[in-house]
Amino acid sequence: MRLALSLICTFVLCGCPQAPDQRSLAEAVADLQQQALQDETAWRLLESLTSEVGPRMAGSVADARAVAWAVEKMNDLGFDRVWLEPVDFPLWVRDSESGRVLSPEGFELDLTALGGTPGTGGTLRGDVVHFESLASLEAAEPGSLGGKIAFISAAMRRDQGAAGYSETVPQRSRGPFVAARKGASALLIRSIGTDTRNSAPHAGNVSSLEPGESLPAAALSNASADRLVELLQGEGPVAVELELDVGYRGRASSHNVIGEFTGASGSGEFVLIGGHLDSWDLGSGAHDDGAGVAITLAAAKLVADQAPRPARGIRVVLFANEEQGVHGGKAYAAAHANELSLHVLGSESDLGAGRIYEFRTRVNEAAEPDIAELAELLAPLGIPHGTDALASGGADIGEMRKIGLPVIDLRHDASQYFDLHHTRNDTLDTVDPADLKFNVAAYVTLLQWAASSDTSFGPIEPSE
Amino acid sequence: MRLALSLICTFVLCGCPQAPDQRSLAEAVADLQQQALQDETAWRLLESLTSEVGPRMAGSVADARAVAWAVEKMNDLGFDRVWLEPVDFPLWVRDSESGRVLSPEGFELDLTALGGTPGTGGTLRGDVVHFESLASLEAAEPGSLGGKIAFISAAMRRDQGAAGYSETVPQRSRGPFVAARKGASALLIRSIGTDTRNSAPHAGNVSSLEPGESLPAAALSNASADRLVELLQGEGPVAVELELDVGYRGRASSHNVIGEFTGASGSGEFVLIGGHLDSWDLGSGAHDDGAGVAITLAAAKLVADQAPRPARGIRVVLFANEEQGVHGGKAYAAAHANELSLHVLGSESDLGAGRIYEFRTRVNEAAEPDIAELAELLAPLGIPHGTDALASGGADIGEMRKIGLPVIDLRHDASQYFDLHHTRNDTLDTVDPADLKFNVAAYVTLLQWAASSDTSFGPIEPSE
Repeated sequence: MRLALSLICTFVLCGCPQAPDQRSLAEAVADLQQQALQDETAWRLLESLTSEVGPRMAGSVADARAVAWAVEKMNDLGFDRVWLEPVDFPLWVRDSESGRVLSPEGFELDLTALGGTPGTGGTLRGDVVHFESLASLEAAEPGSLGGKIAFISAAMRRDQGAAGYSETVPQRSRGPFVAARKGASALLIRSIGTDTRNSAPHAGNVSSLEPGESLPAAALSNASADRLVELLQGEGPVAVELELDVGYRGRASSHNVIGEFTGASGSGEFVLIGGHLDSWDLGSGAHDDGAGVAITLAAAKLVADQAPRPARGIRVVLFANEEQGVHGGKAYAAAHANELSLHVLGSESDLGAGRIYEFRTRVNEAAEPDIAELAELLAPLGIPHGTDALASGGADIGEMRKIGLPVIDLRHDASQYFDLHHTRNDTLDTVDPADLKFNVAAYVTLLQWAASSDTSFGPIEPSE
Repeated sequence: MRLALSLICTFVLCGCPQAPDQRSLAEAVADLQQQALQDETAWRLLESLTSEVGPRMAGSVADARAVAWAVEKMNDLGFDRVWLEPVDFPLWVRDSESGRVLSPEGFELDLTALGGTPGTGGTLRGDVVHFESLASLEAAEPGSLGGKIAFISAAMRRDQGAAGYSETVPQRSRGPFVAARKGASALLIRSIGTDTRNSAPHAGNVSSLEPGESLPAAALSNASADRLVELLQGEGPVAVELELDVGYRGRASSHNVIGEFTGASGSGEFVLIGGHLDSWDLGSGAHDDGAGVAITLAAAKLVADQAPRPARGIRVVLFANEEQGVHGGKAYAAAHANELSLHVLGSESDLGAGRIYEFRTRVNEAAEPDIAELAELLAPLGIPHGTDALASGGADIGEMRKIGLPVIDLRHDASQYFDLHHTRNDTLDTVDPADLKFNVAAYVTLLQWAASSDTSFGPIEPSE
């Protein structure tokens, strides 16, 4: 055997002693913003996630592929530490779904079953009873629907801040439970979405807080909903047939994928950002929440690549199974409640790839001067301090907010988001690469500001 | 806001130019063996895996915990690259299981359902028909068992080389299919195991290659099997009742966890070692295959920690779901078939923690002089070249062998292994820390020898 013992000699050269970074925060941020506006990292990540992994519903094989993808990308990006934390949850499966109007005329309904609902166990037929809102369904007598199919037709309004979503989403999240109490055999809803041309059904989960049992339920595209409303304005009964082969099938598991860039101070403190790694199965989750994944990874890398780094570290968490009940966010909060003090601030990106147009805060009053400074730093991007609402932290990081983590939301413009949210149209071609860069610029600002600060932004009141 | 911009200055000192490593292979190996015999790494890993993760059946939440554990440990050990590759498979679940003899006397049977078999769907009762071997069951007329419960009582013989296992295991892997063809309603077998005192039932999967359907089937502890045999030697019928709530529940996914130490040559070539990360659910998988996981991780680290490193790299693969059909091994081979040439040699540790007593080879004839050198290097550990059988590579790495990867088995003494294999007794207290160190010493020898060589050990004939 010939030996091939290698002679390796590594000269590591370092221009030490290095001059201290004398740049002001404003200079560092301006520099980072310029870098972000040129940086292709977020786009490359999003392209890779949507094309190489694709739709990644929690508990599916694609979800496992997404976890592997995230570990690889975090390592490639040079995170100092990358690890997984397991998350378990009930497995909900969509095997097939279809539905049609049988009379007074026959046509296929463009629909998708609501996450967390049971299937129809074969074909379910019934006459449709129309309600213009969840409130009017709630006003019906218990048991009064006698096996009919309830239909709620309220439409979501379009707005920048997603208030329209909050107003209408109970139709989806609570509707199936309410309809069950009224004696319905199934529920149809108009999708919670703003798309009107080439409309598609919007998936989404039912509430995990509502008491009682849900029933088979599906969301119609706006076009199908319009057509059904029109028929229901006629005289005779409208009969519908549904075949929803969906439901819970035991339990499954996935992982929160966590990467951390260490801070320079050695204090162990860090800023918590991230998005959720799972998506619904209909599109490829480009906006929801591939964008959040890509933006926060890219921003963390830009900030950590500075020499010297900020004092505090940056932790990016890509949460498991947000869509079906915030399981990753809840698991993270349960696992890390005892190190809340190391988390100096939280901010999740989970409202699509639209341009960030304002920021919202939920911090201690004592940090107000710092917030004014953040507003100055974000001013060049045209992102003012929005004060109409407190920050939530986002669905997943919001679980940490509930136990006292101060949070700041960089609010994405959601005017277009609900045209494709949870639909087959949530694909990469609907994302503007320039918007992604802009959003990375906003995130590097937030990160540099919070990570190079020594302000405590908390405590805040724990809240639901 | 006060800024805490840190002044970081890193002096990286390097005593270059370093003297080339002039040690001979024999010197390097002797040094590594001495280190291994003192090294606590494998024990610490095994203690952590069995206590912090515990039993980790494929597709369970504990399996996801094991994946997270493995990523963390590989990063802690300093692997240059750590990544995941998804593996999907049918999910088999054991919810509950019990059984008892009803007459001529009543007693509980100590049993466990065989992996991959269906449940009884409630209570199943029947008279038992006794067969002393699988062969005698095979000799029965098709359909002749008319709803009775078949029982095969052949006992496994104890030996160092696990030949006894190979002889008897078809009773478990093929038995349920054969019994179904004979018209039985269920199958009981004597466990494939050598334990006699405090015996426990041994789990294990049925074959994935056998045509037809399996039926509800369970393995009895040797003690229960003995008692049943005794009853069956009496006159009257022996009635048994089984309640097996087990079976397939859709699909699940896990990951092969892969860590690589880069070789010094830059050729990209590496030696492939590893074990499987999943276990059965009854014990904590200390021997099967926590030991293989711990031994190969610890050995890889010792070899990679040398300066300079060997020319070739070391890849450790912790395979997903070996127990229920070598799913991780098959996925690995499928994913890496096109880079077979970078894999210079494979060796899996998956035969418990017993001391390695011989090595077996399956390499190209041209590599014979190298094999003689390996025998010399292993001689101080008392590990000769066993030539009675060719190496298999182990169940998982064997999938790469089938497409031409040369393999060497470091054969663990299996004399005691089948006392606890796949039972509730496979726990950490049955592992001897000194044995673990000895086995790491054998693995560092193999690794240093193969990784610092420039011999091609292949090609070998692809084989089943």
